[in-house]
Amino acid sequence: MSDNRINTAIVGASGYSGEELVRLLLGHPHVNLSVLTSRQYAGQPLASVFPRFGGHTDASDLVFSEPSIELLADKAKAVFLALPHGVAAEFAVPLVQRGVTVIDLSADFRINDADTYNEFYGTEHPAPEWLPKAVYGLPEIKRADIANATLIASPGCYPTSILLPTIPLLEAGLIDPAQIIADSLSGISGAGRKADVPFLYVECNESLRPYSVPKHRHLSEIEQELSLANDSPVTIQFTPHLVPVNRGILTTIYLAPALGQADDIVQWTDAVDDCLTKRYADEPFVRLTGSDRLPDTKNVTYTNTIEIGWAVDPRTQQLRVFSAEDNLMKGASGQAVQSFNIRFGLDETSGLPI
Amino acid sequence: MSDNRINTAIVGASGYSGEELVRLLLGHPHVNLSVLTSRQYAGQPLASVFPRFGGHTDASDLVFSEPSIELLADKAKAVFLALPHGVAAEFAVPLVQRGVTVIDLSADFRINDADTYNEFYGTEHPAPEWLPKAVYGLPEIKRADIANATLIASPGCYPTSILLPTIPLLEAGLIDPAQIIADSLSGISGAGRKADVPFLYVECNESLRPYSVPKHRHLSEIEQELSLANDSPVTIQFTPHLVPVNRGILTTIYLAPALGQADDIVQWTDAVDDCLTKRYADEPFVRLTGSDRLPDTKNVTYTNTIEIGWAVDPRTQQLRVFSAEDNLMKGASGQAVQSFNIRFGLDETSGLPI
Amino acid sequence: MSDNRINTAIVGASGYSGEELVRLLLGHPHVNLSVLTSRQYAGQPLASVFPRFGGHTDASDLVFSEPSIELLADKAKAVFLALPHGVAAEFAVPLVQRGVTVIDLSADFRINDADTYNEFYGTEHPAPEWLPKAVYGLPEIKRADIANATLIASPGCYPTSILLPTIPLLEAGLIDPAQIIADSLSGISGAGRKADVPFLYVECNESLRPYSVPKHRHLSEIEQELSLANDSPVTIQFTPHLVPVNRGILTTIYLAPALGQADDIVQWTDAVDDCLTKRYADEPFVRLTGSDRLPDTKNVTYTNTIEIGWAVDPRTQQLRVFSAEDNLMKGASGQAVQSFNIRFGLDETSGLPI
Amino acid sequence: MSDNRINTAIVGASGYSGEELVRLLLGHPHVNLSVLTSRQYAGQPLASVFPRFGGHTDASDLVFSEPSIELLADKAKAVFLALPHGVAAEFAVPLVQRGVTVIDLSADFRINDADTYNEFYGTEHPAPEWLPKAVYGLPEIKRADIANATLIASPGCYPTSILLPTIPLLEAGLIDPAQIIADSLSGISGAGRKADVPFLYVECNESLRPYSVPKHRHLSEIEQELSLANDSPVTIQFTPHLVPVNRGILTTIYLAPALGQADDIVQWTDAVDDCLTKRYADEPFVRLTGSDRLPDTKNVTYTNTIEIGWAVDPRTQQLRVFSAEDNLMKGASGQAVQSFNIRFGLDETSGLPI
Repeated sequence: MSDNRINTAIVGASGYSGEELVRLLLGHPHVNLSVLTSRQYAGQPLASVFPRFGGHTDASDLVFSEPSIELLADKAKAVFLALPHGVAAEFAVPLVQRGVTVIDLSADFRINDADTYNEFYGTEHPAPEWLPKAVYGLPEIKRADIANATLIASPGCYPTSILLPTIPLLEAGLIDPAQIIADSLSGISGAGRKADVPFLYVECNESLRPYSVPKHRHLSEIEQELSLANDSPVTIQFTPHLVPVNRGILTTIYLAPALGQADDIVQWTDAVDDCLTKRYADEPFVRLTGSDRLPDTKNVTYTNTIEIGWAVDPRTQQLRVFSAEDNLMKGASGQAVQSFNIRFGLDETSGLPI
Repeated sequence: MSDNRINTAIVGASGYSGEELVRLLLGHPHVNLSVLTSRQYAGQPLASVFPRFGGHTDASDLVFSEPSIELLADKAKAVFLALPHGVAAEFAVPLVQRGVTVIDLSADFRINDADTYNEFYGTEHPAPEWLPKAVYGLPEIKRADIANATLIASPGCYPTSILLPTIPLLEAGLIDPAQIIADSLSGISGAGRKADVPFLYVECNESLRPYSVPKHRHLSEIEQELSLANDSPVTIQFTPHLVPVNRGILTTIYLAPALGQADDIVQWTDAVDDCLTKRYADEPFVRLTGSDRLPDTKNVTYTNTIEIGWAVDPRTQQLRVFSAEDNLMKGASGQAVQSFNIRFGLDETSGLPI
Repeated sequence: MSDNRINTAIVGASGYSGEELVRLLLGHPHVNLSVLTSRQYAGQPLASVFPRFGGHTDASDLVFSEPSIELLADKAKAVFLALPHGVAAEFAVPLVQRGVTVIDLSADFRINDADTYNEFYGTEHPAPEWLPKAVYGLPEIKRADIANATLIASPGCYPTSILLPTIPLLEAGLIDPAQIIADSLSGISGAGRKADVPFLYVECNESLRPYSVPKHRHLSEIEQELSLANDSPVTIQFTPHLVPVNRGILTTIYLAPALGQADDIVQWTDAVDDCLTKRYADEPFVRLTGSDRLPDTKNVTYTNTIEIGWAVDPRTQQLRVFSAEDNLMKGASGQAVQSFNIRFGLDETSGLPI
Repeated sequence: MSDNRINTAIVGASGYSGEELVRLLLGHPHVNLSVLTSRQYAGQPLASVFPRFGGHTDASDLVFSEPSIELLADKAKAVFLALPHGVAAEFAVPLVQRGVTVIDLSADFRINDADTYNEFYGTEHPAPEWLPKAVYGLPEIKRADIANATLIASPGCYPTSILLPTIPLLEAGLIDPAQIIADSLSGISGAGRKADVPFLYVECNESLRPYSVPKHRHLSEIEQELSLANDSPVTIQFTPHLVPVNRGILTTIYLAPALGQADDIVQWTDAVDDCLTKRYADEPFVRLTGSDRLPDTKNVTYTNTIEIGWAVDPRTQQLRVFSAEDNLMKGASGQAVQSFNIRFGLDETSGLPI
């Protein structure tokens, strides 16, 4: 293994995002996966917990450790946290203080405002003074900030699918910020690897159901970032649904023309096309389908790509934007690796299938 | 078999709705399934085409016939048409003229206006003079008309899931008719039993995708019936999605308070509760979940029940209504049998699982 | 509700077989479902635990009780036990002693020999003196015994799929008892409604896996019944696999000609055909597909039918027999109701879809 | 793109194996995908047929061509044929004659004997004189031959899953060649991307079914290779089943001890362990689970790994061996790329996830 690989750790590697991080980092040309921690599996070899990794030469010596700040700071230059909210902060702060770059996949540092965190997560923020120092790790929107960050709060799966299509339109003043509706379908891996009856195979297969209405936790970061793009507060309607696929989020966003834009719907349509096309034409992980074709999650599973399509309805003069992503890739672990690549000056697509 | 069973035929019994009609009518205590037709399978026993029915004593003699008006008029008092649009009218008109009661599952007689039919179905209506004579067979809305109809146009799967929750709110003046959005998820049986690549197992499994945006054909009947409830034209946004289940439609409807209703959101919330509760409390096939629980298609598959739930969002002061149905039952064949029961003075739940 | 309905209880009505019993008994024309018990849900209305039953008029007053022998004996003439093994016996014995007919879906009374029970279930049998009094409730094989039983041990899902095709061939001396292999595929509901990680949606979807090799617990009753048919001990190979469907068992059985039968393979083939055809031609819940068509679970889900097909391979002169059943119906609750019908002198198909 | 990449073509790139080859070869570090052909899609860009590849820089110029020997011989040093049997030979022969290395994924050159081909494929072999020149491309068994081959007949999905576990045991004389049974479960992609009703989503979901009993075409190559390992003819029983997953084959193989081996079952068990362990311990794409754990297809999907496990049953003194592979990877396209790597002297794992 080359000497200039970056020693990297994963804390909480036993959930679905953690497992996906293992898969991606084992295949990453510039990473040496030096530490894996899991309270539940401490002492067990990686391959006995996840048989899938049994064949990797690089994985043969990997054994889950008890999580320890000292061990992590000693052995890793970068640490990915795949932990529940509340717990992540306990690792993030001391690791950053020891000079380690932290990419946190939990919600702990996504929210700028401690009161909002409290409102949506039902608990006091454990380290509110660190909130201003974290960067919201949405690469297509905050690439420059990510390049210099030491604490990267990687976005949630739903927020990514909503923010990437909507932010450019808001910034361009093309849509009415008071009339945003996001309707999302999520694969079951989004619920995590926890033994709960509602996520058993038989309970999910042949089942379609909305949940967490009207106030899903992800609304806090979605509205925060939309408000920043809008330069004033935005409140939206958001409905997540659970549908029987392993991976994938399909989001349909209903948008109305901004004041003044409705007068000339042809011009507005062109402006929407231009806005999204210019913003994303050169992004390696954004595939625009325009109005030619609608996104489909099966085109993006096991890749870090998000597909975005849209259609103005001449009957209602309203806009629908659609996005499709793999919730474990662009919606979680893939995006976290993308930020890691940016932060360490690597090719942004290193280790990430397009 | 009792003498007073009603001789009944199914024309086009080889698709998914046709097969479901066979299943329901074989189990119906007041029906004698006297004729089954299928161009494709003429001459073949029912049980060789659909092995599932091989054990029914009543099914053992059933053989698919070539469709023939004479045979049908001779052998059946009621005929269900499970045919493509355009073809259904060729059977419906001569059968009704011969005194047979026709329950048509196609779109041919759902639209009151021939121009609208032409606009949405891309072809001249084959028998426009019959459009005013047909009754739109949504039992909870048009029970009295159905009881006296000879030509019943049974509604589509998406329309049922949208109209039942929305019509009472529109009639009560509680919602803004200009701001209706319906977002639907449909199981793959909705696409019919036709050999097309996009509906292969591998193309649908692990896939989530919108389609027919912005102008799905069902919009014609949805907007027609909403306009009637509203006493003036209504145009809505409707997005169907294909998701990997065999059966089920889950619809999420976004609704805004009508002018004046937004002033007192608590009162509006109560009025919405009252409106839906009063309208549907005694309906055998409507299960209201209110705001206690959200609908789930797995609670209604293989039944003729539609679940309806709702939630006013205090953050946005908007209403979301959810419905779940089995697209082959309440969304197609079950509802057609419900209309048949009404038309022939039977218990409305005869032969229909709740 | 008619006065001569049989008051019937379900103990342990919160698992998948229990829920299926509720569904079947609510629709049974000669049953009054008088008591439902569940430790977990005691005090809760049926409809709040299983929303699916919310619309049944007969279900509207049903509330889960704490299980109590007195209550059950007082309120029910027949009791279905849908409990874990070991627990079922605690209810079965005192209920039978009080004159109640018990249909036990657990393994507690399926095994004639207490040592075998101990070997396969890893615990002393709680009431070995009752083992000889119980009848193994496989209707097509033991109809007469079931008609007079007070303690019916309803068979497991795998055993039903293996025994029905194999017993007649063994009894007729057509197959070699030393060379029986049964390879089964089971839907995930067979694992029960318990919150274990291996049965989460994401762990089962897109997964195919054998388990419990080489000594699944069901082997004990399979080999016991085969030995009875063979009049001397039979040991078989049995491999269960878990595959991603909700319902269904597909079993492939590999069989060799008995000594002497291999000499004339054409005659043997005819004898096999005759044997199965004569045995099952008049059985309402057995559908023989012969060698014309192979069984498919989708033809039997939601019915109490088992499909049985077979093919002699002229290349190897061996026989393969296939069976398909719904593991919750013919494999569990449907079969238990079939035994109930026999026991109470009702039409054997009462309340059971074919 | 580096100059020393190998120009490579795919003929018939529109089916599932063809699409998988595109995916693998686009990511292969030593391949330049120079030509893609498809009669159906000739003239269309790759990305418009398979949106998934829209983001690949290397894919942006790829357009499907009409298949032409001249074009292929001119532009490619290696050609993968993903064509139906019968058609593949029309390309293979002239390409090899022009000095192109051909890796054929069809059955055309897998069978050494033209009569056997005729028996199993129902048609005369189009180029029988080429049969002796082709190498059966099972790398773990024929690595040396593959390294020097110009016409590689890549094995089918079922044969791979059966041959890899069985050949070493046969060669070592540990199992009885007269008593081999292979029972396989296959994902639906094995049926190809063709618009047939039995492979529609609704027909496959919630369905478990055997098919092609007793004489599936793959038996011809399975028995040929087993006979070679056994040095005398072998006939087996093989039952394929279709189960609802996109990808994966799980095979359960029933094996009996060879004459003499049954005397000491402990010794036989050790010999089996030794045989498989020694043979495969160093193979990069074989993961032995031994008797500690049973294979599961979800551990191998999207990789070129085959998992192999086994268990001797002390009750029956018989052996069961299990294998799990991704039918599109180790079962088809991945294995074809593995042979390509061997043939061109590359690292055998180049471009292939483990």
